[in-house]
Amino acid sequence: MNDKPSVLRETDEDARRLARTVLRSARSASIAVIEPQKDGFPFVSRVLLGIDTDGTPVILVSGLSTHTQALVIDERCSLLTGETGKGDPLAHPRLTVQCEAERVGREEDAHPRLRRRFIRRHPKSGLYIDFPDFVFFRLHPLRASLNGGFGRAYALDGEDLIIRSPAIDEIAAKEEQAIDHMKRDHADAASLYAQRHCGAKGNGWRIAGLDAAGVDLASGDLLKRVEYDAPLQSPDDLRPALIKLYS
Amino acid sequence: MNDKPSVLRETDEDARRLARTVLRSARSASIAVIEPQKDGFPFVSRVLLGIDTDGTPVILVSGLSTHTQALVIDERCSLLTGETGKGDPLAHPRLTVQCEAERVGREEDAHPRLRRRFIRRHPKSGLYIDFPDFVFFRLHPLRASLNGGFGRAYALDGEDLIIRSPAIDEIAAKEEQAIDHMKRDHADAASLYAQRHCGAKGNGWRIAGLDAAGVDLASGDLLKRVEYDAPLQSPDDLRPALIKLYS
Repeated sequence: MNDKPSVLRETDEDARRLARTVLRSARSASIAVIEPQKDGFPFVSRVLLGIDTDGTPVILVSGLSTHTQALVIDERCSLLTGETGKGDPLAHPRLTVQCEAERVGREEDAHPRLRRRFIRRHPKSGLYIDFPDFVFFRLHPLRASLNGGFGRAYALDGEDLIIRSPAIDEIAAKEEQAIDHMKRDHADAASLYAQRHCGAKGNGWRIAGLDAAGVDLASGDLLKRVEYDAPLQSPDDLRPALIKLYS
Repeated sequence: MNDKPSVLRETDEDARRLARTVLRSARSASIAVIEPQKDGFPFVSRVLLGIDTDGTPVILVSGLSTHTQALVIDERCSLLTGETGKGDPLAHPRLTVQCEAERVGREEDAHPRLRRRFIRRHPKSGLYIDFPDFVFFRLHPLRASLNGGFGRAYALDGEDLIIRSPAIDEIAAKEEQAIDHMKRDHADAASLYAQRHCGAKGNGWRIAGLDAAGVDLASGDLLKRVEYDAPLQSPDDLRPALIKLYS
């Protein structure tokens, strides 16, 4: 039995990897919310995107904006990532993730982590991240649709976009130290990762984030994501994984 | 009395012009719909964008897609345009337009016009535009939000995005002939328009559309919009308007 429309392809590991990469290498996203104030009309706008250490998408938004005012009342939202780039805008992979938004207040344990990672990913957000009306939401993925280009559509579970590992918190705790170490003692690693694993050019790359499943790389306006072979099961696996990406 | 939030600026002609330009120079857009099949969840995806002769946004979509299946049941949708480009994605102007979608079937008078204009704007769409599952929707603007960059937010009426002129149909009837004439006898005009009025570079520009309010210019992956001083009131005004843009 298969209740999927026949246009969907079978979701395989390549599709899941592409979906994770399209999501985690996005600087910004379109977010759709429901406007309870407008009788349930949909509303789409642009937000900067961060990723938490377990892969959950994170947004930083102003309480004055329409999307924030909507999310406070109705937590259901839809997130579109994937750059259009050159050529036909529909030839590029894009991902729609259906999410439930959870507000993360300043008083919560997760806040310093989200703040630190967001600033590292979007350095200019430091100018307003502490403004009193700005707030984080974690967007918990329920399900997703990947469009890999014409005729290549896949359905994914929310679970496909979440990193599962017992080492997430321990790796998060040493993330900053590891990034500093790589910058100081292996200054060429970020650019080599970007060139070797992401087809990127140039030598201006830096590590913008490190988690149990991979590394976020940034250079100017560009953001890339490289994954290890498999999610790390222990913080001790981090060093060998980074060395393996290098060799 | 003013019931707008204080973050909104007074909507002036510059804001309206910027909103029209952001909308009409977009190749693609994010569209948010309501999924009646999923208990009213919002759903956002990417679509190619066209513009009808009265300024109404037009989409060409597959009947197999989630957004089409949603729009057939609930015509409410939200359209986001505005490229991210270089630098901070939130520093670039973007426009959210709240619309009601109207399906335009193959048997309707408007269909040949939409088809002709869409192919001229998106030449590759000719490969699938006549597939039986593809369908046009005109998206009637009800209201819009322009974000011109940080702290520059404006509210617009749907009417601000519609071209009002008694000459729309007559100009539409001679559009193809006028474009052919310009291409044949004034081959340099499109590039000169793009350079002079849109800050564009290069000489590969062509006229992708012509209406009572302005000209759409295309070059490879780029699309630009230049407006006349005011909407034309007669088809006889077209020639002097095109000459004025040239001089």
